[in-house]
Amino acid sequence: MKEIKGNSHGGNLYLASKKFGIKEEDFLDYSANINPLGVPKQLEELIKNNIQNLVNYPNIDYTVLTNQVADFLDISSNNVIVGNGATEIIYLALEHLKIKKALMPVPTFSEYDGACKKYNVELQYHYLKDKNDFKLNVEELKDSINKDIELIFLCNPNNPTSTLMKKSEVLEIVDFAKGPGIFVILDESFIDLTDEEEENSLSKLVEQYNNLIIVRSFTKFFGIPGLRLGCGICNESLASEITKKRLPWSINYFATLLGEMLDKNNTYIQETKKWINEEPLWFYNELKEVQGIEVFKPNTNFILVKILDERFNSVSLRDSMGRRGILIRDCSNYVNLSDIYVRFAVKDRESNSIFLEKLKEILNERG
Amino acid sequence: MKEIKGNSHGGNLYLASKKFGIKEEDFLDYSANINPLGVPKQLEELIKNNIQNLVNYPNIDYTVLTNQVADFLDISSNNVIVGNGATEIIYLALEHLKIKKALMPVPTFSEYDGACKKYNVELQYHYLKDKNDFKLNVEELKDSINKDIELIFLCNPNNPTSTLMKKSEVLEIVDFAKGPGIFVILDESFIDLTDEEEENSLSKLVEQYNNLIIVRSFTKFFGIPGLRLGCGICNESLASEITKKRLPWSINYFATLLGEMLDKNNTYIQETKKWINEEPLWFYNELKEVQGIEVFKPNTNFILVKILDERFNSVSLRDSMGRRGILIRDCSNYVNLSDIYVRFAVKDRESNSIFLEKLKEILNERG
Repeated sequence: MKEIKGNSHGGNLYLASKKFGIKEEDFLDYSANINPLGVPKQLEELIKNNIQNLVNYPNIDYTVLTNQVADFLDISSNNVIVGNGATEIIYLALEHLKIKKALMPVPTFSEYDGACKKYNVELQYHYLKDKNDFKLNVEELKDSINKDIELIFLCNPNNPTSTLMKKSEVLEIVDFAKGPGIFVILDESFIDLTDEEEENSLSKLVEQYNNLIIVRSFTKFFGIPGLRLGCGICNESLASEITKKRLPWSINYFATLLGEMLDKNNTYIQETKKWINEEPLWFYNELKEVQGIEVFKPNTNFILVKILDERFNSVSLRDSMGRRGILIRDCSNYVNLSDIYVRFAVKDRESNSIFLEKLKEILNERG
Repeated sequence: MKEIKGNSHGGNLYLASKKFGIKEEDFLDYSANINPLGVPKQLEELIKNNIQNLVNYPNIDYTVLTNQVADFLDISSNNVIVGNGATEIIYLALEHLKIKKALMPVPTFSEYDGACKKYNVELQYHYLKDKNDFKLNVEELKDSINKDIELIFLCNPNNPTSTLMKKSEVLEIVDFAKGPGIFVILDESFIDLTDEEEENSLSKLVEQYNNLIIVRSFTKFFGIPGLRLGCGICNESLASEITKKRLPWSINYFATLLGEMLDKNNTYIQETKKWINEEPLWFYNELKEVQGIEVFKPNTNFILVKILDERFNSVSLRDSMGRRGILIRDCSNYVNLSDIYVRFAVKDRESNSIFLEKLKEILNERG
């Protein structure tokens, strides 16, 4: 038996099922931040109607998909690198950059750490402060850049804090970094799940920056983490170099079918936008009323929560919820978080109501 | 628009469709070596019935799939690395080995070359001889190993020559290499499409060799190059190290479903075995009767052919067949082959008969 890595990521239904003796399909998974509208009906039909095409290799250059993604984001296909999830793009970017030291505001998405380990990049942490609601202060970040730093990771909105930087703030950092040739990997994997995507994304500005690599994901918005699709966005020269490093046929054929529904007028997209405009705020307001926790205001489809009730920590709360068929994300393994932080996804109203009920049941129990 | 790499691999229906003005689905694709039984009905059902599960991340350790593959191959799961196609395994192996120089009998599968370029591995070619039907002579190979060589690539059966080495021959090389610590990457991607898989595969011997990494594919046998699934087989220590280098979630969820049909008694598997025992030999015998070509005896589901008719080369024959709706593989870009070599896949009897008819039409035309 292979060693099992434990719950170092959200979404490990397999382990949870073994641990809590509940079938995988019976869990409400609040540990992974996936659109509760689920797999788009249109994609489901595309998959069902094209199974026979699996007998063909995907087009190794992914020309059609690349153009579809570019059109959807209203940028040139020369700026787009499609990938096997946002994860492949992060790894490819680091492989290409060949840098030695990076600055990373923490807490943030743990896979940057994994990628840095793989490519022997030393990480310098920039500690975000709980008392500032984990918001990044641009001046403080600039102050922590020393001359060894060759790369800055930015995650906007940030995972797991759900904080969002304004475009002007991000640009200030990218501009500041440009002079000394410091690269910025800007992970916008959840920016399409904010209500200000257009206002805050830097996608359309990449041609002006030779130091900027944006990472985007289609996995979260379209509810398809099992299918794997993401992209990188950067200037033409970087995009061309990074594309050359992509593993041949790394994106499976079914994932390429998503390209066919990339259209702003698509119903699924519009419904998702409507949900993201309403539900996180509703869930946040409801959670604020629950005793024994502190709730950080979300900007996307997940919410960071601090446990105040001293009878619980992130593990025992996770287990209590787990036994009730709900998975949450224990955040104790994030750098700069401890065992009193957990993360909840935001789902549909019905699930969120069940979630609230179970959470209250646990926290209101007499000790 | 991204630069299009051209037909450097088989199976590029997208380009062929543009070039010949024929719809992708109307081609008979003899350029890629895929089981003509197509996508297994059982897998089709599994996909259709599990589309909703795409909302979950794949289990990052692929524990279930790894066990299913190991059981199927009757080896320990500690020896198995599942991957995003055989391709990911080849790249991971090279990434792990960190070697400087490799020996490669040519002609062979072009992706080894791609992987070596990526990891800065210098290649020394060992030229197989047309006059020996491109069969590898073990003594000659051993003679060409000098002390700089740290790795030998072996492809068994070899692509595109369709030659098969006996287990004893392969073992002689692996044993010879073991002493001086030379690694062997043994690509058995097509060995399940020979009629002597059990007799010739080294899968069950990996625990005895610390210098052997076997690569296997599920893509060709199960007709699913669009889905991507392969595995590496090696001793426990190598397997553990190489697994750590795998990209998180590199295998999509649908590909993991194939694990459920890995059973020797499976009808699809038995039908495929029956076909592979009969059809390549039939097609070979028929092709031998066609004037203007020399046909190399196949051991798996593709056939190397030399064009003797001086009116044609690999490009013009490919184009003539392409205009008739049949794709063949121009082999001129293989090292140690030239523009008089082409490769034909073996398909079902009906398609093979159409193929023969079109080929004769072209070669029998009066100049």
